[in-house]
Amino acid sequence: MEQLFVIKIGGNVIDDEKNLSSFLDDVANAKGKKILIHGGGKIATKIGEQLGIAPNYVNGRRITDAATIDLVTMVYGGLVNKKIIAQLQSKGSNAIGLTGADANIIPAVKRPVKEIDYGFVGDVKSDRINISVLSSLLDSNLVPVFAPLTHDEKGQVLNTNADTIASSLAVAMSKKYQVRLIYCFEKKGVLENVEDDNSVITLITKDIYKYLLEHHKLFDGILPKIDNAFAAIDNGVQEVIIGDARDLLVNVTDRVAGTMIK
Amino acid sequence: MEQLFVIKIGGNVIDDEKNLSSFLDDVANAKGKKILIHGGGKIATKIGEQLGIAPNYVNGRRITDAATIDLVTMVYGGLVNKKIIAQLQSKGSNAIGLTGADANIIPAVKRPVKEIDYGFVGDVKSDRINISVLSSLLDSNLVPVFAPLTHDEKGQVLNTNADTIASSLAVAMSKKYQVRLIYCFEKKGVLENVEDDNSVITLITKDIYKYLLEHHKLFDGILPKIDNAFAAIDNGVQEVIIGDARDLLVNVTDRVAGTMIK
Repeated sequence: MEQLFVIKIGGNVIDDEKNLSSFLDDVANAKGKKILIHGGGKIATKIGEQLGIAPNYVNGRRITDAATIDLVTMVYGGLVNKKIIAQLQSKGSNAIGLTGADANIIPAVKRPVKEIDYGFVGDVKSDRINISVLSSLLDSNLVPVFAPLTHDEKGQVLNTNADTIASSLAVAMSKKYQVRLIYCFEKKGVLENVEDDNSVITLITKDIYKYLLEHHKLFDGILPKIDNAFAAIDNGVQEVIIGDARDLLVNVTDRVAGTMIK
Repeated sequence: MEQLFVIKIGGNVIDDEKNLSSFLDDVANAKGKKILIHGGGKIATKIGEQLGIAPNYVNGRRITDAATIDLVTMVYGGLVNKKIIAQLQSKGSNAIGLTGADANIIPAVKRPVKEIDYGFVGDVKSDRINISVLSSLLDSNLVPVFAPLTHDEKGQVLNTNADTIASSLAVAMSKKYQVRLIYCFEKKGVLENVEDDNSVITLITKDIYKYLLEHHKLFDGILPKIDNAFAAIDNGVQEVIIGDARDLLVNVTDRVAGTMIK
């Protein structure tokens, strides 16, 4: 099977113009098929404040109310996505910007209301991801770039976590490709000591993870990322790499940076 | 050659939720291949006001400054485009939202500064429109929906008139399709008497146009639209129809509404 990179970038890359540009250089230079998923960054919060849309929390959880879904549709789907597309195009990468609504690539369901009503948040229908449209875009040498938005197939755009979109796409596409899922975040990888950027754990297998957990070597905040990585691997993804966008992508083929989970 | 509809909708349809929904019903029901181009509507002005971005005019011409290009990228490329996509999807039409930057479909050049510096406005490079990507999307039974944005291939998104994008796409695609270009606007068609909605001129040929001009039968505001229509026809478009979105599209095949220019 052919290799496919599914790459997620977070706010720390998007918010800094210089970081973003150099990251997109790396994306444009990386050989082979790839799909990019971006988060929102701080710009949505900033524009929301200017529009008088205050972040809305219930029990510590962020709620996507009607004003907020319009805000993120504008900022993620419009401003951030199209800036990335225009930049990638200028770097010779034939990027095409998408949300999950476009070509019905990522159908989702509005999260059912239990203790909390999350509002216009979408849970991905993983088994309904439109692999064939996405493959045909890749076969046309296009680089699909997703904003973290899905839809309910009833006319409503939904806000969806970018990490979740990345892993859902990676799992779905692993039916046709050898998928390497890459999470770019603000650290150089999974660290044994959060204070020390040089304490990157280069490889985590299930056995190693068990050992690290038992010996309390890991920072709590990283655990969901590792759990998600193993879930992706259990569902067909070849390997997951977590690390810093600044040195991850150039070295992604010979693996001298970040943490590999497999 | 196969038939292709290139359909432009303006602000009067977009600004009214009910009008938009019923128009999109018609789009979804219209058989055959089609491309949609939407304008911006009043929502961009409204959000601009909330963000403190005042419309900027020089010699009566609207200027797209740095704040305004970000605004229209958000609102046209994000909010308006993705709402249309989600709605079309819910109506069974496999729509995909695009700007001219996506897949480099509409390269443009920043308008050269002469008497007026229009700012981030793009003049379409008509001979560089990416017909093959667009055809392959159509062949995948997708309905491309364009926001009125292009790019300069150097990383900058540009604001471009939706009528111009519609005619440029129609002309370019006429190399592969029999193109019918449809302009939906607030009137039932070209009117002999602007006060009388029932005075639609159903057919305008070059001879008829000459007669109408000589006898001062036409409202000045409509002349650029007719001139653009003839320019499109001179460059390969089969026919142009101008009329009201509310009754134009359902009847588009048997031609009982609007003005046909050919």
